[in-house]
Amino acid sequence: MCPARNTGNGKRGYIIPIGGAEEKDDKPVILQKFFDLCGGPSANIIVIPTASKLGRIGSQYMEIFDEFGAAHVDYIKVENRDDCGRATILNKLDKATGIFITGGNQLRLSTILGGTPLAKKLRYLNAHGIHIAGTSAGAAIIPEHMIAGGSTGPTPSESGVVLSPGLGLTNAIMIDQHFRERDRLDRLLTALAYNPFACGMGIDEDTAVFIDPDDMLEVVGSGAVTVVDPGDLKYSSIGEARHGETISLINARLHILTSGSKYNIATREPFIE
Amino acid sequence: MCPARNTGNGKRGYIIPIGGAEEKDDKPVILQKFFDLCGGPSANIIVIPTASKLGRIGSQYMEIFDEFGAAHVDYIKVENRDDCGRATILNKLDKATGIFITGGNQLRLSTILGGTPLAKKLRYLNAHGIHIAGTSAGAAIIPEHMIAGGSTGPTPSESGVVLSPGLGLTNAIMIDQHFRERDRLDRLLTALAYNPFACGMGIDEDTAVFIDPDDMLEVVGSGAVTVVDPGDLKYSSIGEARHGETISLINARLHILTSGSKYNIATREPFIE
Repeated sequence: MCPARNTGNGKRGYIIPIGGAEEKDDKPVILQKFFDLCGGPSANIIVIPTASKLGRIGSQYMEIFDEFGAAHVDYIKVENRDDCGRATILNKLDKATGIFITGGNQLRLSTILGGTPLAKKLRYLNAHGIHIAGTSAGAAIIPEHMIAGGSTGPTPSESGVVLSPGLGLTNAIMIDQHFRERDRLDRLLTALAYNPFACGMGIDEDTAVFIDPDDMLEVVGSGAVTVVDPGDLKYSSIGEARHGETISLINARLHILTSGSKYNIATREPFIE
Repeated sequence: MCPARNTGNGKRGYIIPIGGAEEKDDKPVILQKFFDLCGGPSANIIVIPTASKLGRIGSQYMEIFDEFGAAHVDYIKVENRDDCGRATILNKLDKATGIFITGGNQLRLSTILGGTPLAKKLRYLNAHGIHIAGTSAGAAIIPEHMIAGGSTGPTPSESGVVLSPGLGLTNAIMIDQHFRERDRLDRLLTALAYNPFACGMGIDEDTAVFIDPDDMLEVVGSGAVTVVDPGDLKYSSIGEARHGETISLINARLHILTSGSKYNIATREPFIE
């Protein structure tokens, strides 16, 4: 789906995909920055642990934001599609200043949330100023077009990626996570080869991009973000490739951005500070 | 990408995906209805034959619309990504009342048009009242999420479909073509299983759906349209499936609609006449 439209005068909330395995104990800079953005001591943060089947993951993040000193922290228990329409669950989001989607399996998120009132409400809230962060699978689900799976390595190939519709908070980027750790350049390039309209973001572990309401992003964390801009792409061979064949891509632009670097998604310009 | 926003008071144009192999000589009801919709004798129709590498396909459709008596018929020659930004090509669309995208290979369309000024202009024109029809690959490219390939048969499976970003004239439906002829229920169901937000339309050959500006569609032609509405889906197992494994889908709704039948995509209601 598309991002929701802002029907008032305010701005969209931040969108914050995290590459997974972000530091939680010693100097948790990413989680701390999210907490500060959501209002610090006045933050009201709701955790969505649906991607994971592990019962503890929701309370783990609640403890972290609680220790930071948030005014209110809660989670919503969403385990099937019916849960996504329950008023008791949807109402918990009404006073949130920030929403955090945990890791796990992004297809669990898309199959449970896709097309439900909860998915619609998340798009609405983000369009009306509420910040939404997601780590690992929670980052994968953020864009209109989600990388659901794929192969591993540097070279793009005809069947190198599995795409699925995502949550649709943004359609300007495609996201991959655990990027360097799981050697995923191939699947990000394959995803962009199909239709070079979006900008690719390969996000390392313990690394996040904080995308502001004007689509300027800042890199935060210990790793890097690999930006692949196919805006001036001259050619992609995926239309002619045989099953599994390596594909050609001519004239993509590549940036590796580390903490503090900025990138304007709208104009496709990087700023190194 | 998302559909463009209408910035004036008018309505969106019709969106007309055709299942391929539409009748061209004896009673060409689909092409005739498209021609009438575009203004009949005052129609100005532009053909986009980019999906095909066959040189003749553009002139074949031009001859048909010319014989119907259109005021003006032309085609645009778009063979690479640079062509999609040329003013001489973009300007040809300015006075169009209808645009027709031929068959061929939908990945040729998405890799050449995706993210270019031509793709943006097509979304803009449709949002501002210009009708856009596409047959076969030209139908596949229409929605936000495009079926680019997949397996054949009735049963959905973990790797049963290849999705790619499409042109984005609508995000309410997913389209498959040559539906009965190529036995494609599996790949349509697999596509919906990933994220059940859209409604699936499996369109047989010589069959079209004319989607009006209010998202009411009418079936035209000799075959059927298989509508799969996952709105009340209770469960999809694709998040847990192993590679290639058959997947479960609980509670999808199915309609088979023939010529004259209508379906409201917004409310998901069929009307048999």
